[in-house]
Amino acid sequence: MTKDLSVTMTSALHDPSLATLVPGRGGPVVPRAGALTPLAPGEVQLTGGFWHDLQRLNATTIIGHCLAWVDRTGWLSNFDRAAAGTIGGQHNGIEFVDSEVYKLLEAMAWEVGSSSEGELAQTFGLLVNRVAAAQESDGYLHTSFGRQGQPARFSNLEWGHELYCFGHLIQAAVARIRQGHDDLLPAVARRLADFLVVEFGEEGRLAIGGHPEIEVALVEFGRATNTQAYIDLAAVLVERRGRGLLHPIDYGQAYFQDDMPVREATTLRGHSVRALYLSAGAIDVGIERGDAELVDAVEGQYLATLARRTYVTGGMGSHHRDEAFGDDFELPHDRAYAETCAAIGSVMVSWRLLLHSGSARYGDVIERTLLNAVLASPREDGKAFFYSNTLHQRTLGTPPSEDVASPRAQSSMRAPWFDVSCCPTNVARTLASAHLYFATCSDAGIQIHQYGDFTATCSIGGEDLAVEVSTAYPYEGDITVTVTAAPDAPVELALRVPAWAEKTASWSADRPGRTTTLEDGYLRVTGKLEPGTHIVLSLPLTPRVVRPDPRIDDARGQVVIERGPLVLALESVGLPQGVDTECVDIDLNSPIESTPTGARVTLIPRTDSTPAWPYMDQGDMSPGAGGGTPILADLIPYARWANRGPSTMRVTLPVAQNP
Amino acid sequence: MTKDLSVTMTSALHDPSLATLVPGRGGPVVPRAGALTPLAPGEVQLTGGFWHDLQRLNATTIIGHCLAWVDRTGWLSNFDRAAAGTIGGQHNGIEFVDSEVYKLLEAMAWEVGSSSEGELAQTFGLLVNRVAAAQESDGYLHTSFGRQGQPARFSNLEWGHELYCFGHLIQAAVARIRQGHDDLLPAVARRLADFLVVEFGEEGRLAIGGHPEIEVALVEFGRATNTQAYIDLAAVLVERRGRGLLHPIDYGQAYFQDDMPVREATTLRGHSVRALYLSAGAIDVGIERGDAELVDAVEGQYLATLARRTYVTGGMGSHHRDEAFGDDFELPHDRAYAETCAAIGSVMVSWRLLLHSGSARYGDVIERTLLNAVLASPREDGKAFFYSNTLHQRTLGTPPSEDVASPRAQSSMRAPWFDVSCCPTNVARTLASAHLYFATCSDAGIQIHQYGDFTATCSIGGEDLAVEVSTAYPYEGDITVTVTAAPDAPVELALRVPAWAEKTASWSADRPGRTTTLEDGYLRVTGKLEPGTHIVLSLPLTPRVVRPDPRIDDARGQVVIERGPLVLALESVGLPQGVDTECVDIDLNSPIESTPTGARVTLIPRTDSTPAWPYMDQGDMSPGAGGGTPILADLIPYARWANRGPSTMRVTLPVAQNP
Repeated sequence: MTKDLSVTMTSALHDPSLATLVPGRGGPVVPRAGALTPLAPGEVQLTGGFWHDLQRLNATTIIGHCLAWVDRTGWLSNFDRAAAGTIGGQHNGIEFVDSEVYKLLEAMAWEVGSSSEGELAQTFGLLVNRVAAAQESDGYLHTSFGRQGQPARFSNLEWGHELYCFGHLIQAAVARIRQGHDDLLPAVARRLADFLVVEFGEEGRLAIGGHPEIEVALVEFGRATNTQAYIDLAAVLVERRGRGLLHPIDYGQAYFQDDMPVREATTLRGHSVRALYLSAGAIDVGIERGDAELVDAVEGQYLATLARRTYVTGGMGSHHRDEAFGDDFELPHDRAYAETCAAIGSVMVSWRLLLHSGSARYGDVIERTLLNAVLASPREDGKAFFYSNTLHQRTLGTPPSEDVASPRAQSSMRAPWFDVSCCPTNVARTLASAHLYFATCSDAGIQIHQYGDFTATCSIGGEDLAVEVSTAYPYEGDITVTVTAAPDAPVELALRVPAWAEKTASWSADRPGRTTTLEDGYLRVTGKLEPGTHIVLSLPLTPRVVRPDPRIDDARGQVVIERGPLVLALESVGLPQGVDTECVDIDLNSPIESTPTGARVTLIPRTDSTPAWPYMDQGDMSPGAGGGTPILADLIPYARWANRGPSTMRVTLPVAQNP
Repeated sequence: MTKDLSVTMTSALHDPSLATLVPGRGGPVVPRAGALTPLAPGEVQLTGGFWHDLQRLNATTIIGHCLAWVDRTGWLSNFDRAAAGTIGGQHNGIEFVDSEVYKLLEAMAWEVGSSSEGELAQTFGLLVNRVAAAQESDGYLHTSFGRQGQPARFSNLEWGHELYCFGHLIQAAVARIRQGHDDLLPAVARRLADFLVVEFGEEGRLAIGGHPEIEVALVEFGRATNTQAYIDLAAVLVERRGRGLLHPIDYGQAYFQDDMPVREATTLRGHSVRALYLSAGAIDVGIERGDAELVDAVEGQYLATLARRTYVTGGMGSHHRDEAFGDDFELPHDRAYAETCAAIGSVMVSWRLLLHSGSARYGDVIERTLLNAVLASPREDGKAFFYSNTLHQRTLGTPPSEDVASPRAQSSMRAPWFDVSCCPTNVARTLASAHLYFATCSDAGIQIHQYGDFTATCSIGGEDLAVEVSTAYPYEGDITVTVTAAPDAPVELALRVPAWAEKTASWSADRPGRTTTLEDGYLRVTGKLEPGTHIVLSLPLTPRVVRPDPRIDDARGQVVIERGPLVLALESVGLPQGVDTECVDIDLNSPIESTPTGARVTLIPRTDSTPAWPYMDQGDMSPGAGGGTPILADLIPYARWANRGPSTMRVTLPVAQNP
């Protein structure tokens, strides 16, 4: 393989014909094979409503907000001073802040689209110029390492994050290519990737980076540029992991998944974002190389993680100290870490497994995770973010300054920026490309995985199949799919029915005569479709009482209320004065009513005293605890909490015992 | 004050008459005033049993084990190379490893006692010589700072721990003085303390150290050497804290209690060990200066912490990331941090408040904390330790190597040593002086606070009052106190009755005619006592069911079983095969029987399945969960867990719901 790598690398550098664009479909992920085929930006487009509003917020506010912060923190000017050779020991920010600029470039690349005009396109171009100017003659590009007065290149693979930053640069280039531009950013990425093929290929350093990300980026860049060497390098890096190539650290080798080979593990473990990014890359490698064992191994790990190491919001990661997964069912709601980036990583993994398997299960996970974990991060005005996403806030907390970067673990209120600010830019690139996760196609037809107002088009046997989706989801449950173009031959429209609606969903079509079945999580409408056909899928959003597994100790004796795809929360803002979210039980014998976005429940205040010692001998317990006057309280979508000022909050509600 | 300080300092250096030993009583703490007076090492002596065995283990094993580790890690040789001027950038271990040597010196000083002969006394002397050789001409003594190739002195007050290390050196000198030796170690400490008076006094640096400890040490050293300047410096350092003199850190200023002045806080917060050491020092300062406001403020903070931020074992500190207190009632049992050193700090605070107030409450806290939190650290063989003390172990874990230092947060099994190894040496110094917390005297008589086999003597009006205490406590509940000497005048024997025994304790005396009352947590036997009188206090050790406050979410629906002063735990070792500590409920309708050291309970195995998603819609829940065949299981003292090999464990037991 080594020889091949070298040949391909040379070709990629010198023979442009081997690095031409792959035309056709393509969002962030375009696998060589799979049950479903992703749609390209031109093939799926938001037309309004919930998700369109979010993408507008991203385009008009979030991206600009992040740009302003990478500018004022000097993370952007690092590139200028690196280019000028003057950066020395004066690098601004932690070692890996280059990556924030790159994730922002990715967000902008998706947002700018195929256009070359407009303010954002110009800003993007200027930013790329500044980044490109810092690239060294051999292709290496990092502002923290290798120049005079800086640590040597790759002198700190455990914590230096060089390969991680490279990965985000390359992913930005993928977005640029997938939007139809093979210009400066992809050229910079090619030179960097070619450098890496030599440096880390089989004849190069026997090494890996402490934070996976390069793997998933290299595979996609290989796909986007039709360069096998990049995919092969990703494979080499995935296979090398788990063999102790990284130096031991306090957190243990599992922290960066260097404790056992990827294909031997049975669950995700260690640092959550690292584990999820690695999983996405390993799936990609497995699919490109027809390595079913690898794909199955990672899918098994991810399924085990969903079953035993995931919060009800889809958030992942229990520990603050090492930002890591805990043991099975170790899911404390107090200080749930549930890093925003981990939720994004989970969406990345689920999307790859959805394309691979066609299983509605992964569409469910994407929906839950986007709506409840990723969207919990940005404030309604797009100018502040959660990094970690607690599920239980006991005190009002102090709002972080709107003008100062916060430590990452701040969780009582959203902060404008962080010392390690991976989450805001990750939210930006995810929102800019979110619609690309909504629909896919196959030889049979179109699959709708997420609901919003959008159009989707694909070509089946040379003829267009196009639909228009219209809904007030996730707040209302009726989804109307209108066929706007259809081939003459029979096709299939598959609409995902979330697991929670499996027994309650209903549907209708205004032109009968086709087969309609609900199986494996999809409502499948099969037959010859005529333009103008309306299919209405109704997913009842009656609030549901959900009981956590008894092994989740922190949630024992408690329930979570969900409404459709939304996890609800009790926030102190809006409660009657004197009602304390820490001293109420939910009365499950009273009706739970739907509100426009949440639910109205009956709470019974407890009259908790505070004895000198909080562990009471049974004989000493006052029998009168509980039993206050019931009150009605509105639960709101968890993702919207802390938008009305400092608040206490809980997602799990203790159940009042029957008297 | 500045001028006075300077005068006192000069005097201390040059006029030995001002620095003579204070004769008479004195354990680790000898306050100027207080309700109770501590006894000196000669006045209270262990004679056998539970605590004597522990002190023998400490003397024969733990101290030697720690000595071997500070030797092999090169933490000891740091002093030699510092003395030789060759240490430069070659310092071994983290910046504050000097403190481990000092805590070991303190342990040895207590253990060596008044003797100057024997192997341990010789080892102690040689060790002191090596430390003393590294002292610089101006009194400064630290192996990590100030020499060529090292960071400048006091260049990193936030994390450098210079003052912290000084404090432990000084505390070792206090122990040496209190054992009757005013030799080299106290001389080294005097020169260091004198240096500090100039350097950090009111005309010196306006600064404090990131980790409190110097405060408590300086007050005690001032008491032991009759040097007001040391006490004044401690007061200055206590008052300076909370005014933002330390640079901001990610964890926030509360981490090192620099967020608000000591006398303004209402609860302990931030890093637990820092908070508790500071509290001990602040109480000492308050008492020496007659500053009731300061003492009351700290007592209030500590009481609030006991009521809302303390684990059932007496352990303190919920967070791994910053080793800190959580919010009120944020007491997860999974990964309970409950650092061993924090438990020791809590004993230090309680002891000071007991001497100050005479309140039995603090004797209860010391008992609970020593037996369940401090003693959980050392392994039965004295060769491995817990640093953090989880209350819920979900997996078997991997035993740490017996030959390699572990990261501090290892918690599934005890480790022989840690990269930051504050706990083993802290255990050593605490065990060596533990008996000094057992009894006190006052003008009225003797107070017995802790139970074991020991003798206690004090002089009342020039006459001896002496008792011999004999018991198999904490495993059996009968305590026999025999009067062995008594004054002619009436006196009082006060025996602490733990709060859990308030309603069940009984007692008898074989020579009637005296007043015997149980009030305020003490059984008080008052009158003229005759030598030979036996008083038997019986504390029934029937296992008790204890219910955590409903705001401790992680313990909701669960109980803790206590037996006498011991918190019990369910350990998987010894359970029938196939019984999983994560899938059992306790049947509170079945009897709970006492065993020699614990309790036998009835458990009902749950048949937990593992669905693909652990949050179940209520309609989907199998009604058959639970209801396995009941089994009998023995609970053991929590402090003894993980002595029989890798094990899962839990302290809080879910309660089976009545069918």
